[in-house]
Amino acid sequence: MALIVQKYGGTSVGSPERIQAVADKIIAYRDQGHRLVVVVSAMSGETDRLLGLADAVSASPNPRELDVLLATGEQTTIALLSMALAERGCLARSYTGAQVHILTDNAHNKARIREIDADRVAADLDAQHVVVVAGFQGVDEKGNITTLGRGGSDTTAVALAAALKADECQIFTDVDGVYTTDPRVEPDARRLERITFEEMLEMASLGSKVLQIRAVEFAGKYNVPLRVLSSFEEGEGTLITYEDEGMEQALISGIAFNRDEAKLTALGVPDQPGIAHLILGPIAAANIEVDMIIQNVAPDGKTTDFTFSVHRNDYQRSLEILQEVAGGMGASEVVGDPKIVKISLVGVGMRSHAGIASSMFETLAKEGINIKMISTSEIKVSVVVDEKYLELGVRALHETFQLDQATPA
Amino acid sequence: MALIVQKYGGTSVGSPERIQAVADKIIAYRDQGHRLVVVVSAMSGETDRLLGLADAVSASPNPRELDVLLATGEQTTIALLSMALAERGCLARSYTGAQVHILTDNAHNKARIREIDADRVAADLDAQHVVVVAGFQGVDEKGNITTLGRGGSDTTAVALAAALKADECQIFTDVDGVYTTDPRVEPDARRLERITFEEMLEMASLGSKVLQIRAVEFAGKYNVPLRVLSSFEEGEGTLITYEDEGMEQALISGIAFNRDEAKLTALGVPDQPGIAHLILGPIAAANIEVDMIIQNVAPDGKTTDFTFSVHRNDYQRSLEILQEVAGGMGASEVVGDPKIVKISLVGVGMRSHAGIASSMFETLAKEGINIKMISTSEIKVSVVVDEKYLELGVRALHETFQLDQATPA
Repeated sequence: MALIVQKYGGTSVGSPERIQAVADKIIAYRDQGHRLVVVVSAMSGETDRLLGLADAVSASPNPRELDVLLATGEQTTIALLSMALAERGCLARSYTGAQVHILTDNAHNKARIREIDADRVAADLDAQHVVVVAGFQGVDEKGNITTLGRGGSDTTAVALAAALKADECQIFTDVDGVYTTDPRVEPDARRLERITFEEMLEMASLGSKVLQIRAVEFAGKYNVPLRVLSSFEEGEGTLITYEDEGMEQALISGIAFNRDEAKLTALGVPDQPGIAHLILGPIAAANIEVDMIIQNVAPDGKTTDFTFSVHRNDYQRSLEILQEVAGGMGASEVVGDPKIVKISLVGVGMRSHAGIASSMFETLAKEGINIKMISTSEIKVSVVVDEKYLELGVRALHETFQLDQATPA
Repeated sequence: MALIVQKYGGTSVGSPERIQAVADKIIAYRDQGHRLVVVVSAMSGETDRLLGLADAVSASPNPRELDVLLATGEQTTIALLSMALAERGCLARSYTGAQVHILTDNAHNKARIREIDADRVAADLDAQHVVVVAGFQGVDEKGNITTLGRGGSDTTAVALAAALKADECQIFTDVDGVYTTDPRVEPDARRLERITFEEMLEMASLGSKVLQIRAVEFAGKYNVPLRVLSSFEEGEGTLITYEDEGMEQALISGIAFNRDEAKLTALGVPDQPGIAHLILGPIAAANIEVDMIIQNVAPDGKTTDFTFSVHRNDYQRSLEILQEVAGGMGASEVVGDPKIVKISLVGVGMRSHAGIASSMFETLAKEGINIKMISTSEIKVSVVVDEKYLELGVRALHETFQLDQATPA
């Protein structure tokens, strides 16, 4: 008998019929003897409906009140799911984020969880209840309703699992696990049975949007075994844990990519201390997130080129800012390209294998793909290439590293 | 500068456009220097939408979870109204029932307010905020969400006004005040400038559905001046207070009527102590509310006839119950009539005027209307007549007591 926290996303609870299907699924788990806490999102479409109402009354909705509004979405789902469970003779009890004291900071619309008082949930579990908790929402110290931002329900589930010391946190979604790469790009992509938190973090941050990145961080920090499963199909999904003896010792676990990148370069900037800050300070001040940053040595000892990448939506504004600051800094020119993609190899195995990067570059060269930027971390090698090479590059790399096979040579 | 609690019903906040109109109205009051607490209902149609969802997942929705679900209705409205106010540069802050600690008993779906902790609201008012509170909902001692039952938003408003010692509680609705009788029945019906709590209670309980009866009781108990106004038209509405020097000294304030009555009679029951209980005990046990109860003297000293009235929806079940108990009691026969109406004269002035009842009976007799039951209280005389005489009776009485004129002869 295990204590399991399950999370069902908006699509899984998107209609009364689907809510009833989820109720049946929950009861099947309970009948196996498990104790269950279930975290749910708003029904799919509901958050957009609420945002539409907000837009209809305000051009820039007050952030505190937006949270009050959005929090009704999950509250509706917890009530409906608990009713469906009760209808099936299953003891169930719903809680909003405030009711189980999911204490967050007061950053409305993107709050972070500080603490969970799991006593009430634990008492209900002891009384044989299935406990149904609203994802995505919490409450600040003053009792104001907060939300964690889109996708925050994953974080709620992991945080509850950590607070309750659950045996596993299961995220039910519309895919049946984490793949070596996107199957829409590479049909031979293979579902991974296991992956480490670190790898998952790199995969998630690079655009494999299976799990919210903060949820993975949280799970890693508190060592909560996390499993991604399909709501609609049977299967074991993918288990995300710390590396251990029993894990597949693959060099590379997967290939992530990101289509939303754009790059900007200030050419001929003086090679002086403080330049990076002069350039990125105003970018950060405009709330633009920077992904890769590359500054090479100055070949003439005097000037260098400074390149960074941003989300494609922020490209135009970043360009304007960069043009403004570059002048005052004596840069010779500002250039940019919004039509790039980033392809990354991810794998804890590469820590001890120096050859990964060169194999990667060789594969891309063979296909005639020019590399525009390179960046590496301990368990990742990323390259930026022209948008048009995305599919070709991913498929070639998938083959080179034999990711279609469970035990690579 | 006054402290005013305003309540806007579902129709008044039925769309984003109407919510914006309410925001404009609120700001106009605030600009007159008033401090404002605003209580709102769910947008019209929203409660039915939520009930539809509940029905789709459960044949008999769990009462606790139904409250969790329904409470989202007002939560949506408070957020939208506060956003609309903020958009107009008006400091505003929304609160759910739980957030302002509207403490109720734990009778889900029909909870009663026990206590309100108004400190938080008072602090916001001091900080020049308009405070927007969700009507209809509260929280029990254990933190479970409760609702007060349909129409409970009026009660929330009055309870808040009492807790804050507000100068006035204004109920905005789709009628512009309390009338001497229903204008759809008597076109000469006149809006009353003032009416006493007692009169309003009698009017409300008799089917003049302008205000929820519990709200009027609450207002009377805590002496909160209550005003009924139109959301859509300008005007002073009707003020409901205790009788005082300045009030119109009318004999009769209004004529209420109720189309939903049905009457039942057990004929020839033994004239013994305990008979009333034997008959009404099983009726009460079946959760059927009894309105009028009439038992006349036993002319033969042995048997009497026992008559009572119920809501027409409960007629059939009441008849079955009465037939069951009447047999064991030795009643000779059970008869009933579901096609009756009750017409009542209401007025604090009748306390000191014995002639009211006889004028009433005389008027009805002149029109050939047969009276089937009579019941009186200190400020009310009610008669039960055939359904078909409703309009005729109301109009004749309206004329007899000159209710179309502000200062009756």
